[in-house]
Amino acid sequence: MREKSIDHVLRATWQGVAKMYNEEASKYGATMAIAFTLLNVDKEGTPSTALGPKMGMEATSLSRTLKNMEDKGLITRTPNPQDGRSVLIFLTDYGVEMRNVSKEKVLHFNNIIAQHISEEKINHFYEVTSLIYEFIQDKKFFNND
Amino acid sequence: MREKSIDHVLRATWQGVAKMYNEEASKYGATMAIAFTLLNVDKEGTPSTALGPKMGMEATSLSRTLKNMEDKGLITRTPNPQDGRSVLIFLTDYGVEMRNVSKEKVLHFNNIIAQHISEEKINHFYEVTSLIYEFIQDKKFFNND
Repeated sequence: MREKSIDHVLRATWQGVAKMYNEEASKYGATMAIAFTLLNVDKEGTPSTALGPKMGMEATSLSRTLKNMEDKGLITRTPNPQDGRSVLIFLTDYGVEMRNVSKEKVLHFNNIIAQHISEEKINHFYEVTSLIYEFIQDKKFFNND
Repeated sequence: MREKSIDHVLRATWQGVAKMYNEEASKYGATMAIAFTLLNVDKEGTPSTALGPKMGMEATSLSRTLKNMEDKGLITRTPNPQDGRSVLIFLTDYGVEMRNVSKEKVLHFNNIIAQHISEEKINHFYEVTSLIYEFIQDKKFFNND
C-alpha cells in the first residue's frame, strides 16, 4: 500500500477492521455497532443523548442500534429522572457479559499488533493520527471561508 | 487520544477525514464518494463492474453515485463492447477538470501532513497500517472456524 496516500490507507485499513469486527460480532448474533455501544454504556447508566456525541454516531443509526439491543435483551431503557427528554440506558446481565466479550476482542486485536511491531512504531502511528485529528479540528487542511 | 485503542483511533481519524473531505467537496456541489470515484476512472474508460472492488464500495451505493455523477455531467456511460453486462465509464471534460481538483485536494492534505511530521514517523504509520491490513487478509486476528 506504500505508494498510496495517507487518506487512502486510513480508509482501507478502517474498512478492513470494521468488516473483521462485524464478522466476529456476527458469531454472537451481534454487529460491530452493538459491541461498540456496549463498550460506551457505563454501569451507572448512560443518558441516550450522551451516547451519540461520545460515539460519533448519527442519531438515527444510534436509535436503530439501541432498539435492536433492547430486542436482544442487552439493555433496558428507563426514563431519565434528571431530563424528561432522554432515557437512561442500562446493561442487562447478558449485556454485561457481552460487554466483557467485546472488551476481550478489542484487547486481543491490540495485543496481536503490539506483539508484532515495536512500541516506537506504534507511538509514531498514534502521533500521525493525532496530528491529523487535531489539524482537522483546527481547520488547518482546508479553510471554510 | 493516546489512551485509546488502535481501532478506536483508526475509526475516529478516518471519520474526521471523511467529514472534512465531504465538506470540501460540497463547495463544488459534490461529495467525497464522487471525488473518490473520479480518481478511480481511467482516461481509457473503466468498466463499471471493475470500480466497486477497486474502491471497496458496495454495488448499490456505487451505482447511486454513478447515476448522480451522470446527472451532474461528470461522466458518460456507454455499453462495454467486451462485456454485454457492464458499461464503460468515461469522464467528460468537466469530469476531467473535477478529477484534477480532487487530485489537488488529496495532494494538499498529504503535503500538509508531510510538512509537519517526519518522514520516519509517516513510514512507521504506513508500517502499522500495512501490518493490520495484511493480518486481516490472513485472518491472524480472529479465525473463522
